[in-house]
Amino acid sequence: MSHYYRLVVSCPDRRGIVARVSGFIAGHGGSITEASQHSDLEAGRFFMRYEILTDSIGMTAGELKEAFEPVAREFDMDWALRDTRRRPRVVILASRESHCLVDLLYRWTAGELEGDIVGVISNHDDMRSMVEWHGLPYHHVPVGDDKSAAFDEVERHVEALEADSVVLARYMQILPPRICQRYAGRVINIHHSFLPSFAGARPYHQAHSRGVKLIGATCHYVTEELDAGPIIEQDIHRVSHCHTPQDLVRFGRDVEKAVLARGLRWHLEDRVLIHGNKTVVFA
Amino acid sequence: MSHYYRLVVSCPDRRGIVARVSGFIAGHGGSITEASQHSDLEAGRFFMRYEILTDSIGMTAGELKEAFEPVAREFDMDWALRDTRRRPRVVILASRESHCLVDLLYRWTAGELEGDIVGVISNHDDMRSMVEWHGLPYHHVPVGDDKSAAFDEVERHVEALEADSVVLARYMQILPPRICQRYAGRVINIHHSFLPSFAGARPYHQAHSRGVKLIGATCHYVTEELDAGPIIEQDIHRVSHCHTPQDLVRFGRDVEKAVLARGLRWHLEDRVLIHGNKTVVFA
Amino acid sequence: MSHYYRLVVSCPDRRGIVARVSGFIAGHGGSITEASQHSDLEAGRFFMRYEILTDSIGMTAGELKEAFEPVAREFDMDWALRDTRRRPRVVILASRESHCLVDLLYRWTAGELEGDIVGVISNHDDMRSMVEWHGLPYHHVPVGDDKSAAFDEVERHVEALEADSVVLARYMQILPPRICQRYAGRVINIHHSFLPSFAGARPYHQAHSRGVKLIGATCHYVTEELDAGPIIEQDIHRVSHCHTPQDLVRFGRDVEKAVLARGLRWHLEDRVLIHGNKTVVFA
Amino acid sequence: MSHYYRLVVSCPDRRGIVARVSGFIAGHGGSITEASQHSDLEAGRFFMRYEILTDSIGMTAGELKEAFEPVAREFDMDWALRDTRRRPRVVILASRESHCLVDLLYRWTAGELEGDIVGVISNHDDMRSMVEWHGLPYHHVPVGDDKSAAFDEVERHVEALEADSVVLARYMQILPPRICQRYAGRVINIHHSFLPSFAGARPYHQAHSRGVKLIGATCHYVTEELDAGPIIEQDIHRVSHCHTPQDLVRFGRDVEKAVLARGLRWHLEDRVLIHGNKTVVFA
Repeated sequence: MSHYYRLVVSCPDRRGIVARVSGFIAGHGGSITEASQHSDLEAGRFFMRYEILTDSIGMTAGELKEAFEPVAREFDMDWALRDTRRRPRVVILASRESHCLVDLLYRWTAGELEGDIVGVISNHDDMRSMVEWHGLPYHHVPVGDDKSAAFDEVERHVEALEADSVVLARYMQILPPRICQRYAGRVINIHHSFLPSFAGARPYHQAHSRGVKLIGATCHYVTEELDAGPIIEQDIHRVSHCHTPQDLVRFGRDVEKAVLARGLRWHLEDRVLIHGNKTVVFA
Repeated sequence: MSHYYRLVVSCPDRRGIVARVSGFIAGHGGSITEASQHSDLEAGRFFMRYEILTDSIGMTAGELKEAFEPVAREFDMDWALRDTRRRPRVVILASRESHCLVDLLYRWTAGELEGDIVGVISNHDDMRSMVEWHGLPYHHVPVGDDKSAAFDEVERHVEALEADSVVLARYMQILPPRICQRYAGRVINIHHSFLPSFAGARPYHQAHSRGVKLIGATCHYVTEELDAGPIIEQDIHRVSHCHTPQDLVRFGRDVEKAVLARGLRWHLEDRVLIHGNKTVVFA
Repeated sequence: MSHYYRLVVSCPDRRGIVARVSGFIAGHGGSITEASQHSDLEAGRFFMRYEILTDSIGMTAGELKEAFEPVAREFDMDWALRDTRRRPRVVILASRESHCLVDLLYRWTAGELEGDIVGVISNHDDMRSMVEWHGLPYHHVPVGDDKSAAFDEVERHVEALEADSVVLARYMQILPPRICQRYAGRVINIHHSFLPSFAGARPYHQAHSRGVKLIGATCHYVTEELDAGPIIEQDIHRVSHCHTPQDLVRFGRDVEKAVLARGLRWHLEDRVLIHGNKTVVFA
Repeated sequence: MSHYYRLVVSCPDRRGIVARVSGFIAGHGGSITEASQHSDLEAGRFFMRYEILTDSIGMTAGELKEAFEPVAREFDMDWALRDTRRRPRVVILASRESHCLVDLLYRWTAGELEGDIVGVISNHDDMRSMVEWHGLPYHHVPVGDDKSAAFDEVERHVEALEADSVVLARYMQILPPRICQRYAGRVINIHHSFLPSFAGARPYHQAHSRGVKLIGATCHYVTEELDAGPIIEQDIHRVSHCHTPQDLVRFGRDVEKAVLARGLRWHLEDRVLIHGNKTVVFA
């Protein structure tokens, strides 16, 4: 299996960025295997993502970063360089509805995710044996009246697990602003509606009573405002008058699993760049 | 080409409805070629639609209605019987964006619609020659400051054209309550978003600034409340960060055409039953 | 939870079938909660499926069958009546690729299937602990040079498990004609292509080298002719030049899981009626 | 409206191509507004497409080509540079089924295509007045027993119309090898099935008798081998046992229109690069 340096850049758009960056990499003998770029003409901003074969460059990630620093400064870049040999660590927060959790565990086991699930935190104890069967720690943190204490405990677990990213796999609890800020751009939620329709509680029931003909799910980054963060991915499922709210819930599970899995996969592969309240997704 | 009596029923749900209705039809020698039914368990309401070969019944529509009347009373039915030899008359209201109008004209010409377009009313004169090329009258009714006078004229044209149904093919004007009430359940609109997201003006621009990954269109019956009537059909198109609002508009046109055409087709085939703010669609 | 008698009928099309059958049920006080029917005009054949609330009929399944027998004879029906209190028993045959197996186990656990998985047979031992974690027997039957002996053993296990239906969840082995015949209409396979394209081996590689822009999966009944049995369900996933055969395999897994789950679900709910080499699916 | 130089390149993959090309453009002050690239690792081939703002470069297309020639030679490139101020000329070949023709005429009128339809050739005279209403020449060339003479006449018209590209909009005739070769990579066909399923005649009837649950359409370049050329785009529509071959034909029309329109649009925007029997589509 090959390893890569992944360079992700966002900066004010102007001429010569690609020439400068690709020239820099070619100058160090780097072999680019995947390149994506996007100019947001409205915002005047440029986004790019390069995958560079690690072996083609005779430098460590640290050395390469240092060498790139002047280029980044010249173009006023927000940027990151990641070495894929260090796999990101993912903590999953789950609740009773376990379909997304089980789906992610399977995908991780099957090698579909470029990262490692390192632990599960849940406000219920139901999924303990399934999670432990996968060799993972399971932390049961009930969320009762003292939410503040519960979320302090959640945060301690996330920290102790050295999470790079946190996934709310139908967690059904609203994270306190402190955690949202601390892990900004690294907490992914799956909302069970086609946002911005039906934000908030019981979206399938809302959808059913509005009589929509499609239901959906939305994977997005969590921000302090509920269900309003940058959208990573969405998909839908066709429904009809035949279907009860329970059918919608069942169809919804499949859409949620698929949408969350795609969103997380892209996030872990550094394909999602946040800009304001929107995302650029180099899928 | 075969002709049908189309029986459409909605009534309180109870045992024996199907047996009673199908027994009635069998008793008159009727041959049912298509049958659909639905029980809304929540609302306790039953819906059905039968297509009966006209030739299999030795009665006129009027005689058949009279014979069915006691059955209908027994089960407290809302019902209609339509003879497909009388094709419904459709008037299209359009504006500058002509894709839906052109699409419907083509489908009518190609024999895809079970009804006849009998005239077009528009607040612009742009599409006159295209419409007249199809042999149809074109009424240019500008909607300026005196909206009331304009809509009086629109209503007179609709009436003179003996419209059974009215289609707002991206008409971009809000019909006055009087017309909505008069033609309740017979005015179909295409809204260029996935309702209830982005009701109101410029939905594609709203969608673009929210950063959604899917855009949609919604075909619905017009009620007095803007963009809130019973939904007939919806569909979506995938978009990404690459796409400008103009791209969304372009993709949207294709979705709008398809969704409106399906919605209108079903409406003309008596496949859409309205119940409160929802529809049963026997597609 | 309510229970039902499910009546499934296929017979030569003629007038009065619905009236006769619904009259029969109404005559026994039966309450029909779901009804589907279809006339195949080309083949001159009629298909129907009724769900009748068990409690609304004061008869056992046996008594009801006996009472219905004369009606069935009158119309020359192929028919079945099933009592949903007896849940069908499903045996899964699997191999190394475990995504479909894991998916079905989860859906069973989550209550999505109207039947019970009662055992798993595999030509590899890999999935034993996962299957046993679900409390199910796991039979490892390697298929080596003596295929005949192996399939005799498979058949013995299927028999001992009292299987009503058998699912080939990416089993990758061709069942011998004897098993196909014995379990005709009860063995469901998932083929990893959009049949009839790319029948046979390595369909994703075939698809990749043909340069198609969509890949698919097909759930079908197994017949003696490879990949040619009646199709129950199909779906697709969009691909592009960016994707390697490995990507196609990964996308394909998701399509396969979804398509097989839908197909099996409909089969277990008696929604699939086979007619020649085609199916009527009352989904 | 902005104009662009469009640079499209395919060459053996090696390090430094992007740096060299983007450096070349930056060196001439060029502003790249859209860039796409793809490495086919299997084939060892690299593909790229740049849109360069014409105004940002103080050179004519001819001068720019001359300046680029040494770079192209250095990397052994197949390449083209197009000035979008010269709009490509499209000739449509049509037959009786007119949905694709009408759809393309509308899209052209609506400004959706980056090229101009300059004439229509048909083996029937039916669509003359519609085409002439659009101000276009219509050539009626019946294809009878002497096919060779007919296609000589078709070719003369295509030539006289100075066609850059030819679209077979459900033309239903097989082009002779000479025309296929002469316009290689510039003749686009819409086939009414999901190729490679159901190549040849009456694909919807083939699909109906196989009992598939999805029908499709395929837009591809025409080669001498029937229905086997490089695929540009495909899409599908869901069908069920309810649908007759006529329904499939009707659904198919919508898929065909959409797929052909997308394929042609991408072709005219130089987004489709042919490689062997496959395409790279920078959509």
